[in-house]
Amino acid sequence: MGYSRIKYEDMKRVAESVFQRLGYSAEDSADIADVILEADLRAIESHGVQRLILYYTQTKSGLIRKDVRPEIIKETPVSALIDGNAGSGQISSQFAMRIAIKKAKENGMAIVTVKNSNHNGIEGYYASMAQKEGLLGMVMTNTEAIMVPTFGKRAMLGTNPIAVSISADPYPFLLDMATTVIPRGKLEVYLKKDAPVPLGWITDETGNVSQDAKTVNVNIKNKVCSGILPLGGVGEIFSGHKGYGLGLMVEILTGIIGGGYTSNHCYGVTTLDAPPKNEVKTSHTFIVIDYSMFGDKEEIENHLSVYLQELRDSDKADGQDRIYTHGEKEAEIRKDRLQNGILSNEKTVGEIKGICEDLGIELPQIKVQY
Amino acid sequence: MGYSRIKYEDMKRVAESVFQRLGYSAEDSADIADVILEADLRAIESHGVQRLILYYTQTKSGLIRKDVRPEIIKETPVSALIDGNAGSGQISSQFAMRIAIKKAKENGMAIVTVKNSNHNGIEGYYASMAQKEGLLGMVMTNTEAIMVPTFGKRAMLGTNPIAVSISADPYPFLLDMATTVIPRGKLEVYLKKDAPVPLGWITDETGNVSQDAKTVNVNIKNKVCSGILPLGGVGEIFSGHKGYGLGLMVEILTGIIGGGYTSNHCYGVTTLDAPPKNEVKTSHTFIVIDYSMFGDKEEIENHLSVYLQELRDSDKADGQDRIYTHGEKEAEIRKDRLQNGILSNEKTVGEIKGICEDLGIELPQIKVQY
Repeated sequence: MGYSRIKYEDMKRVAESVFQRLGYSAEDSADIADVILEADLRAIESHGVQRLILYYTQTKSGLIRKDVRPEIIKETPVSALIDGNAGSGQISSQFAMRIAIKKAKENGMAIVTVKNSNHNGIEGYYASMAQKEGLLGMVMTNTEAIMVPTFGKRAMLGTNPIAVSISADPYPFLLDMATTVIPRGKLEVYLKKDAPVPLGWITDETGNVSQDAKTVNVNIKNKVCSGILPLGGVGEIFSGHKGYGLGLMVEILTGIIGGGYTSNHCYGVTTLDAPPKNEVKTSHTFIVIDYSMFGDKEEIENHLSVYLQELRDSDKADGQDRIYTHGEKEAEIRKDRLQNGILSNEKTVGEIKGICEDLGIELPQIKVQY
Repeated sequence: MGYSRIKYEDMKRVAESVFQRLGYSAEDSADIADVILEADLRAIESHGVQRLILYYTQTKSGLIRKDVRPEIIKETPVSALIDGNAGSGQISSQFAMRIAIKKAKENGMAIVTVKNSNHNGIEGYYASMAQKEGLLGMVMTNTEAIMVPTFGKRAMLGTNPIAVSISADPYPFLLDMATTVIPRGKLEVYLKKDAPVPLGWITDETGNVSQDAKTVNVNIKNKVCSGILPLGGVGEIFSGHKGYGLGLMVEILTGIIGGGYTSNHCYGVTTLDAPPKNEVKTSHTFIVIDYSMFGDKEEIENHLSVYLQELRDSDKADGQDRIYTHGEKEAEIRKDRLQNGILSNEKTVGEIKGICEDLGIELPQIKVQY
């Protein structure tokens, strides 16, 4: 599939216009677009403007409610429980993270949970919000069921990503990972290529490992047995039970403590029909720690920067010339994309053109740079 | 190697006597012994009385200081930074977790970090302390360097375990996992058996996967290139970079924010000489959340119990007849060991006999049950 380079600012303006025309306020539209475009800047294509069509369809059909606000149901000086009221996941997540940051600044640390939400984009976006305020951010979400438990064959947990960020030089530490062996986006890549996936990523109706992304994807959509394996793979030999345990930890810290839903009762990108019949109902959690409680912030960040450099400088395995630390690839690619444009595939560009026509948005001249 | 069943109470009494004779108070001795014996009850043999000889040697040589107390250096209503002063890791960890529990009960949540510590046994023990108080406990520690970063060949991070526990019926959720593909204890098992390990657990001096536990273990001890792979294995295909990222997260939340040492500057079980030249210097972190901030405790725990049952009841992969949830195996084996005795191998029993002779402890009649 062909890819075009599109100026970041142009595509952001388009995304903002789409949400404004859909009925979101200018501020909310900017907030949602910022999360989406940040995914493209970090080269997480699956969560970038490729998702515009999904949000557009879901909002138009009323699955994502644009006429609601996230609502604080319960609050303490270090916590808040928020009802997303089936509104935009990006709006409730930014709302929640801002509260967590404020409370952590006032009281040292905080935990905020959103229930009854929708897809909220990349968790790393919200972890970065805390990092930019000089705090440590940890974010997690459950999703539609897609992970099979160890020894199981039915998807019972989500991809359940965890993101963590804290400042360091020359780039912040930024971990943003699904607790499945691969994120759903990687499955999509193989679906598009119509190529067999490596053995050890997904399982079929029998619970055996499979290379057939297409069938497995259809099964997940229809809630038939099949799924993505937990980090660590099939069985216990390479510790698949650990990825499964981490996925479970995310279920507990999101849907369980927040009184929301576990992933096996949620719907999502894969399982939603158009027009959608079922609400998404996912839950997200935002933990913020002000590490100045432990010592001088600059000293702590310097210590981290030194350690990350030690890691990058440490002996390379034969045939490797570089060791990365988490956030480094994103920082490099972000710089490139800001300068040279984001990468969008033909299908996405076509979809966005359709949306613009539909909403009567004049498509700004998209500068295809190569 | 032959195994004997030994009455739990008898072995606990022996362990307590050992620490008392070494100069610890009756209370401290009981606390240390409780952590050690709990590992045997949960069938984590590597962290059970098999470690008595290590603690005994380290205390006698002054590496674990018995004449110090853990000391609060910095404190807020939701946090504490503790200097372990190179004393017993079990004592400083229980001290820290008690403070975290108290603060979480008073203020909703808390984070306590111990630096300059020693080996502290199983992290799950401390997570269970919070669970028993109706709270969610999350515990992590760094260790001597044993994990190689993705694309690297030198051990730069520890096994860096994470433990999480929260109440549920009929057994609490209890996750206790190294962020390496296997814990060090599993390597020891293969060393004892002198058997080749599965390809994908460890790497040799070149950074290539190896099956030779013996050479790799000697290399780690001598701080020569070699190590255990992160959860997810070698390279990025099965997401080894995620296990590496989780290991890094643990380094940040322990040694970095606490102003302690990262694993590449720590010593441990493998790298300590006798008599030891280097202090261990590991850091541990204890996070406690009072989830009643979010809703009725009983409802939250019931919700979790229902979900865990849904997981156990979900469709089994072909050839499997059981899906476990984390803490289930431990609960079952614990019951058996309490009733029928813990399992100790001949070498361990021999070592303990030697310690008892050395300290003039009359060895209670050890009931070998089979």
